[in-house]
Amino acid sequence: MDLQELADDVSEYVGFPVTAADVRRLCAALAADPDFWSFAPRARMPLRAAGSVVARLEAAGLVSLEGTQARLTAAGRTAFEDLGIGPLPAPECEACRGTGVLPDRFLPDRAVRFYTIAASRPAPAAEYDQVHLLPEDVWRRVAFMAGRGDLSGLDLLVLGDDDLLSVAAALTGLPRRVVVLELDRRLVDFINTVAREEGLPLTAEQADLRDPLPLEIAGRFDTFHTDPPEALSGLLLFIGRGIAGLKGPGSAGYFGITHLEGSVSKWYRLERALLEEYRVAVTDILPAFSRYQTWDYLLADLHRPPFDRLARPRGSWYNSDFVRIEQISDRFGPEVDATDIYFDTEGLVDT
Amino acid sequence: MDLQELADDVSEYVGFPVTAADVRRLCAALAADPDFWSFAPRARMPLRAAGSVVARLEAAGLVSLEGTQARLTAAGRTAFEDLGIGPLPAPECEACRGTGVLPDRFLPDRAVRFYTIAASRPAPAAEYDQVHLLPEDVWRRVAFMAGRGDLSGLDLLVLGDDDLLSVAAALTGLPRRVVVLELDRRLVDFINTVAREEGLPLTAEQADLRDPLPLEIAGRFDTFHTDPPEALSGLLLFIGRGIAGLKGPGSAGYFGITHLEGSVSKWYRLERALLEEYRVAVTDILPAFSRYQTWDYLLADLHRPPFDRLARPRGSWYNSDFVRIEQISDRFGPEVDATDIYFDTEGLVDT
Repeated sequence: MDLQELADDVSEYVGFPVTAADVRRLCAALAADPDFWSFAPRARMPLRAAGSVVARLEAAGLVSLEGTQARLTAAGRTAFEDLGIGPLPAPECEACRGTGVLPDRFLPDRAVRFYTIAASRPAPAAEYDQVHLLPEDVWRRVAFMAGRGDLSGLDLLVLGDDDLLSVAAALTGLPRRVVVLELDRRLVDFINTVAREEGLPLTAEQADLRDPLPLEIAGRFDTFHTDPPEALSGLLLFIGRGIAGLKGPGSAGYFGITHLEGSVSKWYRLERALLEEYRVAVTDILPAFSRYQTWDYLLADLHRPPFDRLARPRGSWYNSDFVRIEQISDRFGPEVDATDIYFDTEGLVDT
Repeated sequence: MDLQELADDVSEYVGFPVTAADVRRLCAALAADPDFWSFAPRARMPLRAAGSVVARLEAAGLVSLEGTQARLTAAGRTAFEDLGIGPLPAPECEACRGTGVLPDRFLPDRAVRFYTIAASRPAPAAEYDQVHLLPEDVWRRVAFMAGRGDLSGLDLLVLGDDDLLSVAAALTGLPRRVVVLELDRRLVDFINTVAREEGLPLTAEQADLRDPLPLEIAGRFDTFHTDPPEALSGLLLFIGRGIAGLKGPGSAGYFGITHLEGSVSKWYRLERALLEEYRVAVTDILPAFSRYQTWDYLLADLHRPPFDRLARPRGSWYNSDFVRIEQISDRFGPEVDATDIYFDTEGLVDT
């Protein structure tokens, strides 16, 4: 098995870059856990590419595929050994699922109230690419945002909200106000009804984010949250509107982004646009922070091998990283003092 | 209290940008835990700026300072209440200290061997800006790198290694080889002695990273690690040399970086240089992942209020974020299809 050749072949097939390192990581994840819906997300590459690698491994007689299990054959074991590929270690903390945050410790009575409300929300609509975050992981996001000081006493803008993060944030009692812009009328009505019934400083408006922000929204918020579509233009549109809603230096934004629908090259293009066009810094990237409910029509959309033969996943498998960005200050210029690699004005030592 | 005015005043004094959001976060952290060496790192701003804010809060009669404790006065409580500043929540998981990684579960017998070896290493030298990571947190880094598939069967380059991460990585038995470039002769000798005694595929060479990489190093490694000096030119120099040591698309680099010596504006300048000049994507930023041993000469270097009156910290307080970067592939061009915000070729759905 030649990892580079396999990567090149898959790249041509799927139409975006897949590296030899991606293929190696997928193999190591498969060696650790043969269930496709477990190992594929751990490989941190687009799902279609992961499937394509598995299909090729099967065609080469290195794995046998049954149900959701991809098991190494004797030839596969030898090939992996020759390349020094062993089972991918999983050193993640079990208590917090590797996220570093325990949502159930954060305002537990409010969390329970949120879970009750979330249970009665409208069903996801494929038309808007809606797939729901697990309510526990919505609360995890809110806990993290609160721990960064980005909610308390502040104004929060939520762009698209089938996850009801606006409701969770408002239920904490921390934000001064929460405003939601959402395309789906059902959700706008649901959120406004909850806000009224619970007495929350929360309002939702129907809006299409392809239009510029309303004047009374632009530049008025301390923090935004969005879980954008994963096409690059969708990421840039939603995050860009969020940034347009912020007040200025020190204001923060949060969004989810996956490896399951984005190569590192796509991440690169997104990050570069954020830095160059929007002048925000990336301050946190929390891996696999949020899980989503699986959805019925998943395999109906995936026709190519091995998906045409895979069984449906059980439980949550689709996850996203959680990213925090912050508007920078241009108060002092970008000049770099290159004379001293150890100390500058921001160092501990008095100068 | 006017947060923006205070931020502007501190910015002028320290000579780099501090935002009103920074000041607010510091106040919320102080309201949650009055110990300076606990709340200042949680504020995620340069320590000198945090000290300067505290000195101004004291001068305004809003806090009283004694030993290491900054306690809110009655006037301070009123001022914070008026601004909606409550205690900063700490939703971090206690089991893994909010890092998401449990180092003690990862190859525990090898971890113990590493702790024994690390206990006999040379003392830190101020001349090289050496401050040691806690050995447990070195192992945490190695566990995370292994979990990303960036060690097993691969070549690891370590640039500067007073933390002995090279020894920890080699002790896992995962890397094919580990090479260290280090300025301090004492460390080079120590690492090579350990490598010989333990039979590890590990070698250290004396090198000044201000010189270009040796020819037999450049472009030969799958992964690098460095814990660079925090001046922007130091960050760029060490990380840049690491990237110069990598093989190409899919190769990964790891480094530590703090908020305690770097404003978000400095982070922004670093990230922009990495993306534009080095063409790497940032794939993970893990907050407060690593703690350092405190050091004797700390307060001797800090003369301005309130440091001239603060007591020494007890235990570890200085921490850094852990960042993973990855070389991208230019195999497919940077064109963006802006016609569909929901789907592109990297999405799940077959196109």
